[in-house]
Amino acid sequence: MPEYQIFRAEDLKDFVIRFFTKLDVPREHAETAAEILIAADLRGVESHGIIRLNSYYGSRIRQGTVNPKSPYSVVSETPTTMLIDGGNGLGMVASTYAMRRCIEKAQESNVAMVTVRNSNHYGIAGYYAMMALEHGMIGISFTNAQPLVAPTYGRSALLGTNPIAVAAPAKEERPYVLDMATSIVPIGRITVYDKAGKAIPEGWGVDNEGNITTVPAAVLKGGALMPLGGSDIMRGYKGYGLSLLVDIFSGVLSGAAVGGDVARPKDPKAGANVGHFFAAIKIDAFRPLVDFEAQMDYLIRMLKESPKAAGQERIYIHGEKEFEMAERYAVEGVPVMSEVVKMLQQAGAEIGVPWDIEPFHYRSEAEEEL
Amino acid sequence: MPEYQIFRAEDLKDFVIRFFTKLDVPREHAETAAEILIAADLRGVESHGIIRLNSYYGSRIRQGTVNPKSPYSVVSETPTTMLIDGGNGLGMVASTYAMRRCIEKAQESNVAMVTVRNSNHYGIAGYYAMMALEHGMIGISFTNAQPLVAPTYGRSALLGTNPIAVAAPAKEERPYVLDMATSIVPIGRITVYDKAGKAIPEGWGVDNEGNITTVPAAVLKGGALMPLGGSDIMRGYKGYGLSLLVDIFSGVLSGAAVGGDVARPKDPKAGANVGHFFAAIKIDAFRPLVDFEAQMDYLIRMLKESPKAAGQERIYIHGEKEFEMAERYAVEGVPVMSEVVKMLQQAGAEIGVPWDIEPFHYRSEAEEEL
Repeated sequence: MPEYQIFRAEDLKDFVIRFFTKLDVPREHAETAAEILIAADLRGVESHGIIRLNSYYGSRIRQGTVNPKSPYSVVSETPTTMLIDGGNGLGMVASTYAMRRCIEKAQESNVAMVTVRNSNHYGIAGYYAMMALEHGMIGISFTNAQPLVAPTYGRSALLGTNPIAVAAPAKEERPYVLDMATSIVPIGRITVYDKAGKAIPEGWGVDNEGNITTVPAAVLKGGALMPLGGSDIMRGYKGYGLSLLVDIFSGVLSGAAVGGDVARPKDPKAGANVGHFFAAIKIDAFRPLVDFEAQMDYLIRMLKESPKAAGQERIYIHGEKEFEMAERYAVEGVPVMSEVVKMLQQAGAEIGVPWDIEPFHYRSEAEEEL
Repeated sequence: MPEYQIFRAEDLKDFVIRFFTKLDVPREHAETAAEILIAADLRGVESHGIIRLNSYYGSRIRQGTVNPKSPYSVVSETPTTMLIDGGNGLGMVASTYAMRRCIEKAQESNVAMVTVRNSNHYGIAGYYAMMALEHGMIGISFTNAQPLVAPTYGRSALLGTNPIAVAAPAKEERPYVLDMATSIVPIGRITVYDKAGKAIPEGWGVDNEGNITTVPAAVLKGGALMPLGGSDIMRGYKGYGLSLLVDIFSGVLSGAAVGGDVARPKDPKAGANVGHFFAAIKIDAFRPLVDFEAQMDYLIRMLKESPKAAGQERIYIHGEKEFEMAERYAVEGVPVMSEVVKMLQQAGAEIGVPWDIEPFHYRSEAEEEL
């Protein structure tokens, strides 16, 4: 039963900013990165939040494998496209710039696409897609990632969990925000089962011979995650195809690392060379935004108000749970596991950034749902 | 054991052209439609080929629910976007025009997107995506479709099998061509199991109460297909999200019918109002095409040459099997089930178009693989 401490989002952000600036990240970049990390915690996507502050970002800056100055630069540019070199900096910094420029270009040209190479982990994919919403646009965000997923009929982890994020506005209903890994589950889910000593469902992962296994340790030690769909009979090659799609748009179209090379540089001192892809589509280039939004409401209601399956009470639209979570946590505070707080306190102490924030209160959660 | 007759692709095309022109389809449109239908048969996607000539197209023209003249028109246009009204004609006609114009716009503007409303079934999604390949572009094609898939936690068929097709060129390797329904299987697959009296795998479909069922008839009578992923534990809400994504791009962005309304007009004489989405991306706006193609080769080889799962001999890239099939069938001829030939002969006889083509030879196939 993990114990949680509940913090104000602003307090957590403040710690992240102090942590990053201490590591020579410029103040403005630190604010951007903090905003995106804590947005993940607020939306209930704990796995991409403050828990990664040291492991994904801080420790890599200290090891010299991520450049704290994030010296991104524009490699090439047209009115509808841009290729950015992330300068081997924080993925959130180059990506926020990339999506902002993408939206500006779509304001002028209706449609725009931006790719980024030589970057690092960029946090939650959905954040960038959602940046388009307030501009009356559809936003898209993909990234490739360290290899964890085996291709169908293969047994080596050669593709990332390569997420697809797409956001589209509605009027009275909440926006549609798809933010999905193209594997069935992230690797962290396998770890949770491993720690709990439980078998994983058949189809989530394969062992080092490519056989579907229910033993989490067999996936973690030389095995691989399976792409969305899973086994052949459930059409796992479609999830494999989507993962490859994300790698083509993020990696090949930008010239970043691809497949098994992402975050696995031959020189251990070299950067991860992660690639990202962003797109923005101005809706009123096709039809009036109000008409689009009204039809989004219509479609969303048709789905939500339709008869439920036996035993179910509610049909969700993608992003809905996360919006509700963010509204609740903004009021009640953001839960962080006590063991994560301890880890952050230690990382802070190592670089001279005190964890001097107080939780609202403590809470014991029921055992994490498997 | 279905018996097949093997025909020259050109002979089949010729019959399709004569069939359509007899139904007042202009010659040029008939050629376009024939090209796309037979392309499906050549690629081994029988379900979208000549088998549909009467059921999806001919019978609907004769009933007056599809306009044989396909009077499509441009509703709005910018240098990067276009909205087309399909004139309730053949989906293949408006879609070929749409993708051609999309590619022309991308030649000028690097990125372009075109949506189509008031259309009908457009054949294989991959055909339009592949049109971009010879122009050094990535091509994208989506369409919504008649409702057959239930949303996660729902039990009503409210979404189509809404396919995603994306094509990207390589150099020495074959292009990547993803062409996937966002359901696990198409409805025709359930019918095959039903006819064979076999149970379907758990997770392909639900009965009329939304319970996962292995009884094909329960899916066919009041039940629904499940989205890619299937059950909750296998993350079927991701497939549901992808299906909804396709409906937003194809239906909402164009103003076509959406969700449960597609091909289900209140007035039975009204059109299906199917919507499509197309995009083209000029690769050398980002980086030199030769560099992109070389890295595609590298990524494809990394996947194909990686160790195989136990019992497997080959890892495929998406589209590869279909390219091999098309090359084989172009030489050996295209197999058409004898019962389909009979059906086409009868449909032809009804409108005065004789089936006067001879097969190369006959063949008995082993029972269709389930």
